Parts: sequence; C-alpha cells; structure tokens
Amino acid sequence: TGGLLKLTSPKDTPHRQDSAYLLIFIMLLTLTILTIWLFKHRRFRFLHETGLAMIYGLLVGVILRYGIHVPQSMSDVVLECAVNASPATLLVNVSGRFYEYTLKGEVSRGKDHQVQDDEMLRKVTFDPEVFFNILLPPIIFHAGYSLKRRHFFRNIGSILAYAFIGTVISCFFIGLIMYGFVTFMKAVGQIGGDFFFTDCLFFGAIVSATDPVTVLAIFNELKVDVDLYALLFGESVLNDAVAIVLSSSIVAYQPAGDNSHSFEAMAVLKSFGVFLGVFSGSFSLGVATGVMTFTKLRDFPLLETGLFFLMSWSTFLLAEACGMTGVVAVLFCGITQAHYTYNNLSRESQDRTKQLFELLNFLAENFIFSYMGLTLFSFQSHVFNPMFIIGAFLAVFLGRAANIYPLSFLLNLGRRNKIGMNFQHVMMFAGLRGAMTFALSIRDTATYARQMMFSTTLLIVFFTVWICGGGTTPMLSFMSIPVGVDSDQEYSRRSTKHESAWPFRIWYTFDHNYLKPLLTHSGPPLTATLPACCGPLARCLTSPQAYENEGRLHDDDSDFILNDANVSSLYADVTVSTDASGSRTINPKPSAAGPFGENRDRELDLVEREVTIRGTRLVLPMDDPAEPPTTVTLPPPPSPPRSDPHRHRL
Amino acid sequence: TGGLLKLTSPKDTPHRQDSAYLLIFIMLLTLTILTIWLFKHRRFRFLHETGLAMIYGLLVGVILRYGIHVPQSMSDVVLECAVNASPATLLVNVSGRFYEYTLKGEVSRGKDHQVQDDEMLRKVTFDPEVFFNILLPPIIFHAGYSLKRRHFFRNIGSILAYAFIGTVISCFFIGLIMYGFVTFMKAVGQIGGDFFFTDCLFFGAIVSATDPVTVLAIFNELKVDVDLYALLFGESVLNDAVAIVLSSSIVAYQPAGDNSHSFEAMAVLKSFGVFLGVFSGSFSLGVATGVMTFTKLRDFPLLETGLFFLMSWSTFLLAEACGMTGVVAVLFCGITQAHYTYNNLSRESQDRTKQLFELLNFLAENFIFSYMGLTLFSFQSHVFNPMFIIGAFLAVFLGRAANIYPLSFLLNLGRRNKIGMNFQHVMMFAGLRGAMTFALSIRDTATYARQMMFSTTLLIVFFTVWICGGGTTPMLSFMSIPVGVDSDQEYSRRSTKHESAWPFRIWYTFDHNYLKPLLTHSGPPLTATLPACCGPLARCLTSPQAYENEGRLHDDDSDFILNDANVSSLYADVTVSTDASGSRTINPKPSAAGPFGENRDRELDLVEREVTIRGTRLVLPMDDPAEPPTTVTLPPPPSPPRSDPHRHRL
Repeated sequence: TGGLLKLTSPKDTPHRQDSAYLLIFIMLLTLTILTIWLFKHRRFRFLHETGLAMIYGLLVGVILRYGIHVPQSMSDVVLECAVNASPATLLVNVSGRFYEYTLKGEVSRGKDHQVQDDEMLRKVTFDPEVFFNILLPPIIFHAGYSLKRRHFFRNIGSILAYAFIGTVISCFFIGLIMYGFVTFMKAVGQIGGDFFFTDCLFFGAIVSATDPVTVLAIFNELKVDVDLYALLFGESVLNDAVAIVLSSSIVAYQPAGDNSHSFEAMAVLKSFGVFLGVFSGSFSLGVATGVMTFTKLRDFPLLETGLFFLMSWSTFLLAEACGMTGVVAVLFCGITQAHYTYNNLSRESQDRTKQLFELLNFLAENFIFSYMGLTLFSFQSHVFNPMFIIGAFLAVFLGRAANIYPLSFLLNLGRRNKIGMNFQHVMMFAGLRGAMTFALSIRDTATYARQMMFSTTLLIVFFTVWICGGGTTPMLSFMSIPVGVDSDQEYSRRSTKHESAWPFRIWYTFDHNYLKPLLTHSGPPLTATLPACCGPLARCLTSPQAYENEGRLHDDDSDFILNDANVSSLYADVTVSTDASGSRTINPKPSAAGPFGENRDRELDLVEREVTIRGTRLVLPMDDPAEPPTTVTLPPPPSPPRSDPHRHRL
Repeated sequence: TGGLLKLTSPKDTPHRQDSAYLLIFIMLLTLTILTIWLFKHRRFRFLHETGLAMIYGLLVGVILRYGIHVPQSMSDVVLECAVNASPATLLVNVSGRFYEYTLKGEVSRGKDHQVQDDEMLRKVTFDPEVFFNILLPPIIFHAGYSLKRRHFFRNIGSILAYAFIGTVISCFFIGLIMYGFVTFMKAVGQIGGDFFFTDCLFFGAIVSATDPVTVLAIFNELKVDVDLYALLFGESVLNDAVAIVLSSSIVAYQPAGDNSHSFEAMAVLKSFGVFLGVFSGSFSLGVATGVMTFTKLRDFPLLETGLFFLMSWSTFLLAEACGMTGVVAVLFCGITQAHYTYNNLSRESQDRTKQLFELLNFLAENFIFSYMGLTLFSFQSHVFNPMFIIGAFLAVFLGRAANIYPLSFLLNLGRRNKIGMNFQHVMMFAGLRGAMTFALSIRDTATYARQMMFSTTLLIVFFTVWICGGGTTPMLSFMSIPVGVDSDQEYSRRSTKHESAWPFRIWYTFDHNYLKPLLTHSGPPLTATLPACCGPLARCLTSPQAYENEGRLHDDDSDFILNDANVSSLYADVTVSTDASGSRTINPKPSAAGPFGENRDRELDLVEREVTIRGTRLVLPMDDPAEPPTTVTLPPPPSPPRSDPHRHRL
C-alpha cells in the first residue's frame, strides 16, 4: 500500500508543489496590486496595470526558467505498447490493480527542436481550458454588465458594423496576407512544418479580437469623448464574441477532409452557417436567461446575489453543454441583466453584484496578463520564426486598417455625426490584442503551426499592450482630441442628431412601454400602455410596485404632454441654448470611485429619468443623482454651483 | 490529425459533458436557494438549507443513477503492460507520437463486488481535492472572520478544552469502540477486508469534527443564550482544525511499517509531535499573515478588497506548500484579520469583504451539502455494512458523551458561571457532523476500510443533519432554555463574573495598549501607552490617525479616570441596577439583515467602545451604533424608546 499512501497522503510532494505554483501566481497578483496602488497614487499613466502584470510575469518566468533547478523526478515511465490510438482515458493493469489515467495532451518530442521537458515549467503552464471556463466568463460578463448602454445603443449601427463586418474583413485580410507569407516562406525553405490555408484563417480569427482594456481605462480617467469610448468599447466587447465563434467555425470546417485544407466555396458557406447558428443560438440563450427575472427575493440580499451569480454562470455552462459558445451567451446575459434584472434587485444586491463582478473581473484580468508574461519563458514549445513574426505584425496592422478606414468611410455616409479622421486614427491605434486572443491561441498548441501562432500572438499582445497602451495619452493630444468632456452634457448636446434614428426610437418605445413593465418593477404599468382590450392580461402581468409609479407619472405628465414635433424643437432649443451660453462647465467627477462604480450609478439614474410616457418622449436631463424624479418643479430654482442651461429651457 | 482535432475542438463531447455535469450542481444550488427563500418567507424552521440541499442532491443522485443511461463510450483501452509501478505521469508512445497521461487513481475492480463502471457517475463524483483546496477554505475563513470574538474569548478556556482535549478523547474513544466492533466482526466473519487499529483511529478522528451550522443558524434566529452559542461555535470551528491535523498525523504515522498497524507507544508520541508541530506551525503562519497590515490602500476599495482576498488565499497555499495545514492557517488568519486588519480597511472594503466571504461561504456550504446527497447514489464503491454502521452510530454517540459530560464537570469546578445540565444536553445533541467530516472521508476511498468508512460517515452526516438539526427547536423548549435573549444586555449583566479572569484581563490590556495601536489605526497611540524611554520608537510606529483618536480620548478621560477598584464596583452597580429595574427589554433585531451582517457590526462597535485608557478600564455600554463615541456627554439624556439602565448609572 506504499504507492497508494503516497498518492493520497495530504502532505505528499506533488500536492505541495501544486500549492507552491499557485502561490507564485497569487504573489504576482499581490505585487501587481501594490504597484498599481503606487501608480494610482502618483498619477502615473504610461503603464496600465495589465502591462505591469505582464512585466512581473515575465520576470518570474525568467527566474523559474533560468534561476531554479528542481531535480527531475524519475517518475516518468515510457510505455512502449502496441496501441494505435490515444484514447481520453487509459486503464493500466499493474499487477492486478487497475489505475486510471487521463490524457493531458501530446508531448512534442519533434525531430527539429530538443525539448528539455522540465516538470516544473510544465506544471506552471497549466491547462488552457482554465482560461475558457473560469477566467474569461467573469471578464466577459462584467463587460456586458457594466456596459454604458445608452451610449452603446446610440451607436449600435456603427458598433455592429465594426464588430461583425470589420472583424470578418480583418480575419480574411490577415489570413490572406499570412497565406502569401507562408507560401513565400515555404518556397524559401524557412518553414519547418505544415501550415495550411485554414491555419492562416484561424490565425486571422484569433488576432482580430481587440481588447482595449488599457486604452479604455485611460479614456475613462481622462473623460474622452463618449462616442469614441462607446465605439471602441462596443466593438471590443462584440468582436471577442465574433472572434470566438469565427475561430470555432473554422475549426469545425477543418476536419471535414484531412488533406483538403484548401479553399472551398461550399465549405466556407457551411462555416458561415455554423457561425450564424452558433452566434444566434448563444445570443438567444444569453438573452433568455437574462430576461428570467426573480422579484420576490428582495428581502434576502444574500440569496438574491447568490442566485444572480448562479444564473449568470449557468448561462455559460448551458451554452457550452448545448454546443454553443458560453462566452457569447454570458455577454448578452450580462447586457440583458443590467438592463432588466438590475432594476428588480434590492439596492443592497445591486451594490453586491456590481462589486462582486468588478472584483472577479479585476482578479481574472490581472491573472491572465501576468500569466501571459510568465508563458513567454515557461512554455516549452515556442516556435519563434522571425519572418513569420514580421509578416504577422504587418498583417495585423493592415488588417486593422482594412477594418477601420473603409468601414468608417461607409458609415460616415449614413451618420449625421461623422466619425472624424482623428477618431479613426485613434481607433486604429487602440486595436490592442489581449485576453481573448491569448486564450484562443493557447487553447491548442499541439501542431507546429499552432505553436508558431501562439509564440507570435504572445509577441503581438506584448507589443500592443505596452506600446499602443502606453502611447494612448500622447496619441490623444497629438490627434487633438478633447479630454475632460462631461458625458451627461455631451449627451444632451448631441442627442438631437442621433436619437432621431427611427430604428432606435421604435425599439426604445417598445422596450420602455412593454418590455420594461413586463420584466421589471420600473416603467409605466402595462395597464396604461397596452390597449384597453388587453386589460385583464395587463393587470395580471403588472407588478404592484408599478402602480405606485403610475400614480406619480399621472401627477407629472399632465403638465408635460408634448408631441413628437415638439420634442425635436425642444432638442433644437436645447442645443442652441447650450451653444449660446458658451460657458460649458465641466464637472470633474471624483476619480476615487473607481473606473465603473460611480459613473454607472449616474448612467442608470439618467436612463431612468429619460421617461417616455404613452408614446410621448420627454427628456429631463438632471445632473444631481440624489434628487428623486418626483420632486421636479417647473421652473426649478437655478442651482448656484453649476450652470445648467437645459433645465432652464424647460 | 483526426485524433488531435477531436481532443482540442471546443465543441467536443467530453467538454460538453463536463459542462452539463457542472450545470447539474448549479441547478441544484439554484433550486436550493429558491426553496430556502420559500422557507424563510414562511418561517419554516425544521429543515435548514443544508438539509434541504442534501435532499435535492439525493433526488438528483437517484435520477442520475437509475433514470438516465448514457451509452457507454468505448474509449477505454486496457493496456496489459509489464509495469510494476503506477507513476503519476505516463508517456505513451503511439506510433511515434508521445502522449502524456496523468494518474487519476485506482479503479477498484475488486473480486467481491461487481463495479458497473459508469462513466457519467464517475465524472459527477469529481476529484475530492476540490473540497480541500477550493470549497473548504472560504467556509473556514468565514467562520474565523465572522467569529463573535468577545463571546469567544470570554469562554476561551472552555472552548479550548472541548476542542482540543474533547476531540482527542472522542477520537480515541470512538477508535477503541470501533476496534472492538471490528475485532468482533472479524471473528464472526462479517468483514471482507483489512481493517487495522489505525483505520479505527482515523475513523475516530474524522467523525469527531462537529459542524453545527444548522443548529447555530437556529440559535441565531431564536437568540439563544450567547455563552451556549459561543461554546458550540468555538468548539466546532476549532475542532475542525484539530480533526484535520489529527487525521493527517495518524496517516503520517501509518506508513512507517506496512504490517505494523498495531498500537505502539513510540509511534503515538511521534504522531503527537507531528500534531503539535503542524498545528502550531499552521497557527503561527495564519496569525502572521493576518497581522501583516496594509493601511495605505484605503482610497481604492477595489484594490484593497482584492489584496485582502489574495492574502487570505495565499495563507492557505503557503501553509500547504510548507507541508502544514492550510485549513488551520486560514482559520487563524481569518480571526486575526477580523481583529486587526478589519479596523484598517476603508468602510467600503469592510462591507465588500464581509459580503464577499459571506457569499462564498454560502455557495460553498450548499454545494458541499448537495454534493453529499448526490454522492450517496453516484459514488460507485459504497460498502454498507449494517453491523459496522450500528457500531459507528453507537461509537459516535458515546464519543460525544465522553467529550461533553466529563469535561463539563471538570470545567464547572473552575467556572464561576457553571455550564448547566440543560446546556450540556444541548451540546451533546448539537454534535452534528458536516462538511469537514465528509471532506476528510472522501479524500481517500482507495481501500476497503476507507470505502466502508466513507459510506458510514455519509449516513452519520445525513442522520445528524436531518434529525439533530431538525430537532433543535423542540430540544430547546424541552430543555427549557430561554430564547430571545439580547446579547448586549446579557453581556453587561454577566461581565462581572467572567472578565475578572486574570489571563483574559492581561491579554486584553496588552492587546489594547500595544498590539492594536501597533497594527491598526484604532486604539490609543503608542506614545501614550509605552513608557517614556521608548518615545522615539513609539512615535515612528504610531499612525497619524491614532493621534486624532488621542485628542478625543484626552478630552474625555479627564472626567472618567477610574481605577481598577472602581471598575469592579461599577460592574456590580450595573448588575444591581439592571436587576432592580426588572424591566429588561429585549430589543428585537431585524432578522432581514442575515445571519451575520447586522450582528457583527454591533459586535465590532461594542468592542471599539470598550475603551481602556492607560491601564484604566472604562466600560461604556451603548446600544445605538450610529452614535460616535466622542459625542458622549454625562449624564446623557435618556433616550425615550429604549430603557437603558447602564447609561443612567454612569
């Protein structure tokens, strides 16, 4: 029983080593947090926390690789058996006892590069599925949950164009350029293994997902234009989803014929079908789970928060179990929950869920970035091919350009509020590659092509995060993009141009009059918005709280009845008055509240106050979130510290 | 490359199945939360959430076992190779490519019971190390972090006696009884495998850890006597730690001689040494990490919370990596952090950390209990031996009695506030077995003896949680133990008897005058408490905030200078006046604030206000936590809604 005891004793060496390896990461994160604090304290903006986490990861990677030499354990036994398959589970018969082994993957003992199979490094480079199943979901969910929905939906057309059409363009553009490079390298004899066209396309898909977390943190701090922020954030959130579906469609198409890695029109169509099916399936699943509301648990915040957390996670798992993409599902689940479920939560649960996902996002993100740094040295099958790397950098640059400039030109034909050339340059520059690109490339490093892709991707991530991320502040001043813009005022000034877009208006009215009352306690009761013939149905679907709202709305709206024609003139007036006053004051928000805490509250408050009553639109821009909507009197007394021209207009 | 693609494609079947299995657990938790809400809403107290989670787990286990038949995958290949060892890693050479396999454990294909090796059931019964490394740490940390320290330290002597001496008595008592039973069963021929004396002792160790989570939830809701609560809670928290160290000491002793599973005085001494070493090592590690304070991050609650979380987790990992016990370390880390670090956190971080660990504890606990229910049917190597089960129930009952009654008798000789017979009966009855017992028994189910232990342990947990947990409310009324006792008043009334215990007083003064000022911002500055010769040292160790406190204290203490003699007369007066007034009002606390949220705040407030100034003790019992300590005026105006006799006395 000696062998058995060794396996199961709580203090056996492998277990202790695992703890030590995990401890390395925890220490890395701790170090990162302490340094971030120092940076924030000293207002040092050239290196974001993610870039910092990567540097620490790199340093520890160097130490692990060259500094520490753990004596090689002699436990590896090479079985030379007559098996012609590599099953997922293996039962080994050792003198009458059966031991179960699970497949971890292929160990490359290729002919061309010597592997120094170091057990420690192998263990530090742990299972990439961890990224997909544990680290990515909270990041993606948080992106959806903290989305500034108003700015997002105002630019929804452009965002969808960049995210869907742009990412597909970028993917194929990069794929084609890389295929040219690879063909050339094969002719020159610079490439040492198979590299098919599908591999090139796959590479294009994984490096097309942008992740401007660094840039957005700086934008948030400097209060850069909200539309630019919305375009970049929206694009990066959605193109993560697009890239993951795109790459898995390419992989799904790949094994059709083992030798036919060439281009086939039929197979591309099939891939496109897979893409559409998976994306729309994941989308509906996420929205469906998000829409499922729970309203009665308000008295027990702990239960409510727990349920909220479990529902979000089960969306991910359900999508994965159905063969769809959990990341996409969890993204739309987050957006839907922020829009509907959030209003039903008790105030304490609203805080708790926000803080919980903020923390999970923070930890997961920094973990991934410090892991990236570590991987550069701990991963043992790197293939650094200088020509491939140069080609990839060129392709990534051109692919981004092929996404941004032509699409912006086309979008500007339709947009009233044009995307200026300086905005386009910033979007081009802010195309950082981050967590999703890394996770997709480390997921499969079995073949030569994939190993080369992984090593190259790692360099692309490092370069973009350090150089592009660090250069954001100089870039903004070079492009003369104004900073210190107050999002609320900005919004009111611009709303005349945007929100009159009819698809947005129809959706907004439908959502506000029917969906919100049905799914939340806020908004007007359905009995007021539905036609009279649906009375009984409306009564049973409306929650008691909504009637309380109705009483208030009744009192207010008698004064406010305006028709749509008035609304546009009202907008025009507001614009004029703002410009005429000339003295647009910028309210500095307290920056201590973190990147998302305080702004988000305002965001929600403002969305609430943008009340539409029975088809009539009424905009009440208010700056003070503490003031409840019911206490509005006309005309309000001018508040001395702030010039507030919109309110005077009313 | 077909095989490779199958392994790595994101939509391959094993991955989807894993998601589905995890989804089962998430659904179980969701169901549990919804039912708990229903129970709380209807004030139904006979079944606690953990008992409920077990029932749901049982039901799903039955469905999985008998309802669903997944077609057996044919991927298992049995290799009949000439290996005479079972290494942790296996490299299999499949036609030139090397695949790495990791050992999962022994698959029992014993001769005596037919195994229907169902892959689904095997996967649902996942790696028991998950319990130790992921689920237990947050539960144990939360226990330490939410410990009501004042009541705990007041009864520290009795708690240590029950937890250390009591658990060791119980372990050996149960071990001896079981050894008798097993010897008898061997003689009768009722036992089908090896069962040594060390196995009996191991069984004694794992079933000696009590976990009265059910009972304490009811105690908290009914406001049962605070001393009884403190005794039960303190014992259960510490005996988890004792049991885990005890069981690993027994295992560490076991492999010394494979055939000498008999009793040896020398080996027992060695085990005892291991026990002491591991316990004190883990204890110091936990306290050391807890003491490490971070004070400058207050401006960034997200960073602060993140750091707090990472520090707690790294304590666990560090202890495991050093060959100590992470659970013990994390427990004392939690207690220390609640005592010192908590005071340094910003208010927002205090809320965030409390809520985070409350949520983690809630999820982990319910997960473990629903998993327990599931395991009864999904685990495939159960050995239910009726005689062993009867013996175990008897031994557990007698072992608990041998712990409680003799120790209470001895403790009552020294205690001024005796532990009454009704209290002893309740403590006897409340000896539930829960998460720790389960985790220890599932950790190793390789041998026949361990499998029989596991099955028996499962039944013991079910029985105690359902019967003893459900019977708590009737038991309390049967034993005529008063409910609805307000802990603050109770404390003031009793304090005269307890706190005069000199070790407690010395520790309290030392902690308050030197440790708290050194480690936190609260308490008097060191410049005031240290002798004059240490002036420069004191100045550099005291934080600026502490001087602000000093200013306030100076103003106040001129009126309040009392010496120790006065203090005891003050106590006596308070007691008399409380009793004389006769109208002890019980302030009903709002129960919506959850089991720990609101009470804890009060707890901390009260500890803060119990100010000791330069060796002089001063007790200011105040009920209103919103009132800051500086605003105390003498005599305070009587607050109309509450009778507050203590304040009038002053």
